Amino acid sequence: MKETKTLWWDESLGGIRYIDQTLLPTEYAIAGCTDIDQLITAIQRLEIRGAPALGVAGGYGVALAARTCTGPSFDDYARAVLRAADRIRESRPTAVNLSWGVDRVVARFLAANDETSAKTVTLAEAESIAADDTRCCHAIGEHGAALLPDQCTVLTHCNAGALACSSWGTALGVIRSAVAAGKQVKVIACETRPLLQGARLTAWELARDGIDVTVITDSTAAHMMRSGAIDAVIVGADRITGDAVFNKIGTYMHAVCAKHHVIPFYVAAPLSTFDATRKESEVTIEERGRGELAVVGNRTLIPEGVPVKNYAFDSTPMDLVSAIVTEQGVVRPPFDIGALLSRSGPVP
Amino acid sequence: MKETKTLWWDESLGGIRYIDQTLLPTEYAIAGCTDIDQLITAIQRLEIRGAPALGVAGGYGVALAARTCTGPSFDDYARAVLRAADRIRESRPTAVNLSWGVDRVVARFLAANDETSAKTVTLAEAESIAADDTRCCHAIGEHGAALLPDQCTVLTHCNAGALACSSWGTALGVIRSAVAAGKQVKVIACETRPLLQGARLTAWELARDGIDVTVITDSTAAHMMRSGAIDAVIVGADRITGDAVFNKIGTYMHAVCAKHHVIPFYVAAPLSTFDATRKESEVTIEERGRGELAVVGNRTLIPEGVPVKNYAFDSTPMDLVSAIVTEQGVVRPPFDIGALLSRSGPVP
Repeated sequence: MKETKTLWWDESLGGIRYIDQTLLPTEYAIAGCTDIDQLITAIQRLEIRGAPALGVAGGYGVALAARTCTGPSFDDYARAVLRAADRIRESRPTAVNLSWGVDRVVARFLAANDETSAKTVTLAEAESIAADDTRCCHAIGEHGAALLPDQCTVLTHCNAGALACSSWGTALGVIRSAVAAGKQVKVIACETRPLLQGARLTAWELARDGIDVTVITDSTAAHMMRSGAIDAVIVGADRITGDAVFNKIGTYMHAVCAKHHVIPFYVAAPLSTFDATRKESEVTIEERGRGELAVVGNRTLIPEGVPVKNYAFDSTPMDLVSAIVTEQGVVRPPFDIGALLSRSGPVP
Repeated sequence: MKETKTLWWDESLGGIRYIDQTLLPTEYAIAGCTDIDQLITAIQRLEIRGAPALGVAGGYGVALAARTCTGPSFDDYARAVLRAADRIRESRPTAVNLSWGVDRVVARFLAANDETSAKTVTLAEAESIAADDTRCCHAIGEHGAALLPDQCTVLTHCNAGALACSSWGTALGVIRSAVAAGKQVKVIACETRPLLQGARLTAWELARDGIDVTVITDSTAAHMMRSGAIDAVIVGADRITGDAVFNKIGTYMHAVCAKHHVIPFYVAAPLSTFDATRKESEVTIEERGRGELAVVGNRTLIPEGVPVKNYAFDSTPMDLVSAIVTEQGVVRPPFDIGALLSRSGPVP
């Protein structure tokens, strides 16, 4: 299987290169950001998306700010970089990895005493986040692969794949590692309305790797669970608090239906996705615009004047989660997020 | 509220007029069929859709066959009409109303002794089906309205409205009757992938009547149920056997999630939707083409070569149904379909 790189630093560009995920599956195009405004637009338009990838983008974003900000004094320069870091951190509210990536590089930035070293240490730390992410995904894949039977059909939602990370993937990393270990895994990819990351991205990256994938509408999952066609559900996460897993809208519905059919419901995510400081009720669920539901290509799907509710994420309470797969291993209920984070070692 | 007529016999055309439902919400266009091939194409393309409307279309279809078929003898003519009736009956497999409407008019046809009377009695019987359907919907509306609180938010899936019937609607008939009785009803319409009958048709016809309607993705329903935003779910049906309700794909998922959240799950359908002769396992669930998922307007959503499973319907076992609303009243569990049909009187 190819290791798809989703985003990376390009020194010749002086900025960030990434696969523009809004264009897949019909167009595979590499785009670039050379300033913070471009990066924020790319994040908000979901050209760059996926929780772990947002962590990497947040890191590279601070490195980009360190390169592009200016000021008459080092203090002015530093304030400009930190303002840029704040803007990146706030560009999307739900995935914790974005602020985690920003904060990890900001911590190194704050220890720098001059612009030259600030530029060096921020880029080095961002590169380290990207490298850690790839290692995490492979470790998640190895641990999670053991959960899957030798022959199985696994349902997934949205895209928690290479395209959501710097490579390999979390939920799809588990599937890739299981296939690499010789297991026969078929994947049912829910299309994931409104932005169709399952149909467009998960189907694209699995088919590219020769993994058996079939696309269904999101609302078909429960029917297939009832018919016995689904052996397990595995999804990624945008934020895991002590009491809930935040992930793409629709995840909760799959969790309820999996419980009803006694099908295991697995979450695969690096520890950078965990947030021991907040409860579910303290996390903002991003609501996005009407246009994402109302228009696809040249077609208007909703009559003018009719409003929508477009929650980008939902939250699944822990009692519906069978196990969480992290780079440190498989965690079973009861989940003690605080203890998990405090005893976690370095990335394997 | 306007009484939207969805399909009707047009004597000046010598055929069936209907609202082409594939063009809504951007275009409101009346199309016409003057032969059986056109009618079958219109049904298969879902220009005419919705279980009760298919019953009416089946009836008018036999009347159209009686008008358009020819033969050297009356027996030849009759065989041609019955062959056409078979083709209409088989044009879609899941909704029982289509074959019910065909059979009801065929029974009158078989009693005719010459072409002139065959033409007269088939059209009269088809008109009677359409009139009965409108009366049924209003009766369903009256009975069902009593189930809804004075202020409530009701979730519905697909389109069981005026556009699915000859007018008024079944599930939306209940909502219309509740609003007409002064109740404050807000509607959450699930968009209903892949063909988006909720976004395109339910939103269109409710907004046209000034009823408060908001569109969500199908996968948002469970999240809103959990947040307390949904007081009841009400859907139509394409076939009700003794053990299950067949309806648009996604209905089952809503039923499971409603049960999980202790929200009532209502089905509204005329007795013509009931099928006491078959068990769930004997009913064919229609699978439709890849294109319905893979392409919207000018956009390709799924990579070339990746297959789909496109079930048009699913089945919901009776233990998830809180009540069924028919033109005869509200039926509560345990549901005895055979007894219900045998004691049913004429359409109110």
